[in-house]
Amino acid sequence: MSRTALDYEDTWFTPEELAQLRRRLPFTYINALPVKVGANGSLERVGLLLRSLDDGTLGRELISGRVRFHETIRDALVRHTETDLGPMALPQVPVAMQPFTIAEYFPTEGISKLHDSRQHAIALCYILPVQGECSPRQDALSLDWLTPEEAVRPDIISEMRHGQEHVLKQGLAFLGALPS
Amino acid sequence: MSRTALDYEDTWFTPEELAQLRRRLPFTYINALPVKVGANGSLERVGLLLRSLDDGTLGRELISGRVRFHETIRDALVRHTETDLGPMALPQVPVAMQPFTIAEYFPTEGISKLHDSRQHAIALCYILPVQGECSPRQDALSLDWLTPEEAVRPDIISEMRHGQEHVLKQGLAFLGALPS
Amino acid sequence: MSRTALDYEDTWFTPEELAQLRRRLPFTYINALPVKVGANGSLERVGLLLRSLDDGTLGRELISGRVRFHETIRDALVRHTETDLGPMALPQVPVAMQPFTIAEYFPTEGISKLHDSRQHAIALCYILPVQGECSPRQDALSLDWLTPEEAVRPDIISEMRHGQEHVLKQGLAFLGALPS
Amino acid sequence: MSRTALDYEDTWFTPEELAQLRRRLPFTYINALPVKVGANGSLERVGLLLRSLDDGTLGRELISGRVRFHETIRDALVRHTETDLGPMALPQVPVAMQPFTIAEYFPTEGISKLHDSRQHAIALCYILPVQGECSPRQDALSLDWLTPEEAVRPDIISEMRHGQEHVLKQGLAFLGALPS
Repeated sequence: MSRTALDYEDTWFTPEELAQLRRRLPFTYINALPVKVGANGSLERVGLLLRSLDDGTLGRELISGRVRFHETIRDALVRHTETDLGPMALPQVPVAMQPFTIAEYFPTEGISKLHDSRQHAIALCYILPVQGECSPRQDALSLDWLTPEEAVRPDIISEMRHGQEHVLKQGLAFLGALPS
Repeated sequence: MSRTALDYEDTWFTPEELAQLRRRLPFTYINALPVKVGANGSLERVGLLLRSLDDGTLGRELISGRVRFHETIRDALVRHTETDLGPMALPQVPVAMQPFTIAEYFPTEGISKLHDSRQHAIALCYILPVQGECSPRQDALSLDWLTPEEAVRPDIISEMRHGQEHVLKQGLAFLGALPS
Repeated sequence: MSRTALDYEDTWFTPEELAQLRRRLPFTYINALPVKVGANGSLERVGLLLRSLDDGTLGRELISGRVRFHETIRDALVRHTETDLGPMALPQVPVAMQPFTIAEYFPTEGISKLHDSRQHAIALCYILPVQGECSPRQDALSLDWLTPEEAVRPDIISEMRHGQEHVLKQGLAFLGALPS
Repeated sequence: MSRTALDYEDTWFTPEELAQLRRRLPFTYINALPVKVGANGSLERVGLLLRSLDDGTLGRELISGRVRFHETIRDALVRHTETDLGPMALPQVPVAMQPFTIAEYFPTEGISKLHDSRQHAIALCYILPVQGECSPRQDALSLDWLTPEEAVRPDIISEMRHGQEHVLKQGLAFLGALPS
């Protein structure tokens, strides 16, 4: 297949190339915490994805994915939301690009609270209200809508991957909804 | 009429009382910049209210109003949006209470860029996407949806009241949409 | 003593007047979480004030106080920091007025996580790095510099007043330093 | 020279490799706007670097640089500040990682207000108060401390590189210091 200057797809990289690059450069990611809110904007539920992991176990995750070459952050947010929640989720993409925090995932466990054995990822973290119907796709088995109290229960927290319970709690705190 | 401890209404104050208090205490306000955004959250239009002013002239303003005793900021945002844009505006009240800035209006002109001859007002400033139909009410003659370029035109800026062109520009800059 | 239009001091109000107004209007406050940070800005310690309370017990608080008529938020932050930490604290007043959150204290317990039996207070919340020597004054018995882990210990949390443990945790989360 | 798993340096990439990768992956950057502030945190001056560019002309820039593999954002901020301002600048690295905005530079001119012909860069933008002495190094000819009014003068703006006048104005607006 021929390549052109406008060919910005991941197919520029073989899986082996990508795996190798992930050990040499930080990758820019977006993390999004899907939420259901009331008419006055107050938090009602947060959505956590339940995925089947490579090692055969189950794990919970936020919406997450990398920003591609020549892709805007907005477009990356829309793309990953559609991949994870389906085409009818009607997400409210943030109007401002200021994230509520930056999450830094390191490949070496113990360096920070967040780790990802594959890579060094720098994730811009957003709150993502969704108004429509969510239908998890691909490797996501379900999307569970939890109250803040349920979301921070030890059994739920213990299922979170990559230390994302910390991003979840930061998001809840940012919304003024971190349970006592 | 008798008063009770649960009587939190403005009727606690006569207009004279309120006018006097405005010279002695800072009042907490909300300012909201109504916006129309595209599917990916990017700014398309900002809404400016055109009002008939006490002195008979016209002036442009943001959504603005004070927070009442025992009222949440969310409820104040909903109330003032409904007053200014009508009941069908379907505003997306912010999910987090972090404002994009705080606007400080002083009664003495020249102390800051923002002034309000009636009072010292401290306004929490939010971006407010609206999805529905707006029908300006009360003293608002119209709500004009302007492109960012139009909103900062000298003739529009010159009509802004209280120095709110500065809050408008701060909002546009926060959205990455301040024209060159 | 005569009063003039430039006489913006609290002496405009008798204690009785102020107590009465606190039941009729929301008061604008600042809350500040004093912190010690390392050379790269990472959090090392948070400071909590230990105060002797009206009822004879002890309680822990953030830096807190109201914004006076005609006072800027910056000046209120400097004034309350000097009152609570002494004149040699060398606080780094925030360069931007965007707070990390807004704390809403209601006089009625149970309406929100934050309450203040005296008043409805709307507090702009800031992180305040201090570089100098702190000498608590007035009713503050001590300023204790705690690690994030110590600050959220149940015995410390139980001493926090007005539900300010929630503001503390929001601040720690905002700094990426909320303990697991 | 042998390589080890802990060898995270740029020497992993030849200049040719790096140039090629910049056309295939977005690079994570930090942008920092150096500022001088008064005792109460209000903006006094912003610092703009004057550099000698590859094409022999002069241009103005913010502090800017990429985040390396396995490097924290804080360490990248410290490293690039030291490179650009010298070792005695005493920068106040932000206590929270929430940037005031994200700047997206695309290699294709015209797609966004920001462009960088070498790469797609996603820059986390911070305000950086400096307290010490700055001595520009390497390719920086001078660091000029300008008032906000001077910084947005047409002759200064016209010297800004990569469209960074937009990031500058966003920073000034975030600080409430964008000139009329």
